[in-house]
Amino acid sequence: MMTTIDVVGLDADDTLWHSENGFHEITERYLDLVAPFAAGRSRADVAGNLAAVERMNLGHFGYGVKAFTLSMVEAAIDVTDGTIPTSVLPDLVALGKELLARPVQLLPGVAETIPQLAGSHRLLLITKGDLLHHERKIEQCGLAHYFEELEIVTEKDPATYLRILHEHEVRPDQFLMVGNSVKSDVLPVLAIGARAVHIPYEYLWAEEHAEHDGSVPELTSISELPGWLAEVSTTMPNPT
Amino acid sequence: MMTTIDVVGLDADDTLWHSENGFHEITERYLDLVAPFAAGRSRADVAGNLAAVERMNLGHFGYGVKAFTLSMVEAAIDVTDGTIPTSVLPDLVALGKELLARPVQLLPGVAETIPQLAGSHRLLLITKGDLLHHERKIEQCGLAHYFEELEIVTEKDPATYLRILHEHEVRPDQFLMVGNSVKSDVLPVLAIGARAVHIPYEYLWAEEHAEHDGSVPELTSISELPGWLAEVSTTMPNPT
Repeated sequence: MMTTIDVVGLDADDTLWHSENGFHEITERYLDLVAPFAAGRSRADVAGNLAAVERMNLGHFGYGVKAFTLSMVEAAIDVTDGTIPTSVLPDLVALGKELLARPVQLLPGVAETIPQLAGSHRLLLITKGDLLHHERKIEQCGLAHYFEELEIVTEKDPATYLRILHEHEVRPDQFLMVGNSVKSDVLPVLAIGARAVHIPYEYLWAEEHAEHDGSVPELTSISELPGWLAEVSTTMPNPT
Repeated sequence: MMTTIDVVGLDADDTLWHSENGFHEITERYLDLVAPFAAGRSRADVAGNLAAVERMNLGHFGYGVKAFTLSMVEAAIDVTDGTIPTSVLPDLVALGKELLARPVQLLPGVAETIPQLAGSHRLLLITKGDLLHHERKIEQCGLAHYFEELEIVTEKDPATYLRILHEHEVRPDQFLMVGNSVKSDVLPVLAIGARAVHIPYEYLWAEEHAEHDGSVPELTSISELPGWLAEVSTTMPNPT
């Protein structure tokens, strides 16, 4: 028998605010700068090379904009066989700085829904990536005080979720995770016996792609979450 | 009147394990690779340029190896007026990867002293830099379980220390910070009314340089810390 949900974990990038669209746009500008020097390669080839370098570098550099920027530099040299003019490379580093400096843009409904959720549930923000960049975004977004804690982690795997639940003294059956990535926000959460709601975003980084078995609730916007939670708590009796 | 110390905060890089010597060595190899292309510039000039680029990038990229690697790429192009062969740049990125992959080397006395300290005090590890890199080093060092919490922060300022003390329900007069940086581990701690012990390391990054007024206790090795703590607690009566 299931108990009611006490604690809601929320992903940040592409769940509370736009993120992947920035990587998408910077990638287009990378292709504008680099593809002209990649003799005999299509734009799609150059994009595929960048994705491959990023994937190779994950183990070294982890997630986030700094890792992405280092991968842009490496990939630009690799895909052009070293023929890219040196003068183009600082432009790639500047793209990274630009992405880091962008103001946070909340997704529709977030500004109204987070305070509402905080009135009925304990909230945790659970995200992976650059520590400095996330702290800045969290500070900028103006919603930090609604969260009991901001957990910036290197990997969202079952062990990480178990550690967080343990620290906050929450049982898995009292915990719901909400996010845009089936790989990071849904599957590892189901694996520890907790629940998850999937809210897809417009873009998904290929590395984050995964499938679930179809049983995971999917919402189109975070605005639907309070209603979903209310419905779940009335249809699932809380054992006393 | 001072109370006894309940909680000891320890810095990680250059306090528990070697770190700056790695940056020092990689910088020498950067100079070997880059200086030959910096026409009319001395090796010291090229080093000074790298330090200046690092300083300029701190606000964008923060601390840590990834930030340093991006600065190496930018500085190499800048200091050679773009004449550095493109083929050298992946070697600079590889230096960053090498530094990230190095096994942790504990400083002398650390392996024996941390368990001893944990027997008498609550320990917090308080460090700044790359999240992924620090998590790896903490995992590798085998000492993580002696610490009540690992706090990886973006900046060690008075507000950060106050937040950590608040979270762990420690008053400033019950807290001692131990580290190699006067700027990060001593001055902001004194500013909130807590105590600090300075243990200098062989190298200090120029950005971390600061002076204290001479009243801060200085030890030559962490091995002296348990004795120092015992002495402080007998000479300073605990008000009951």
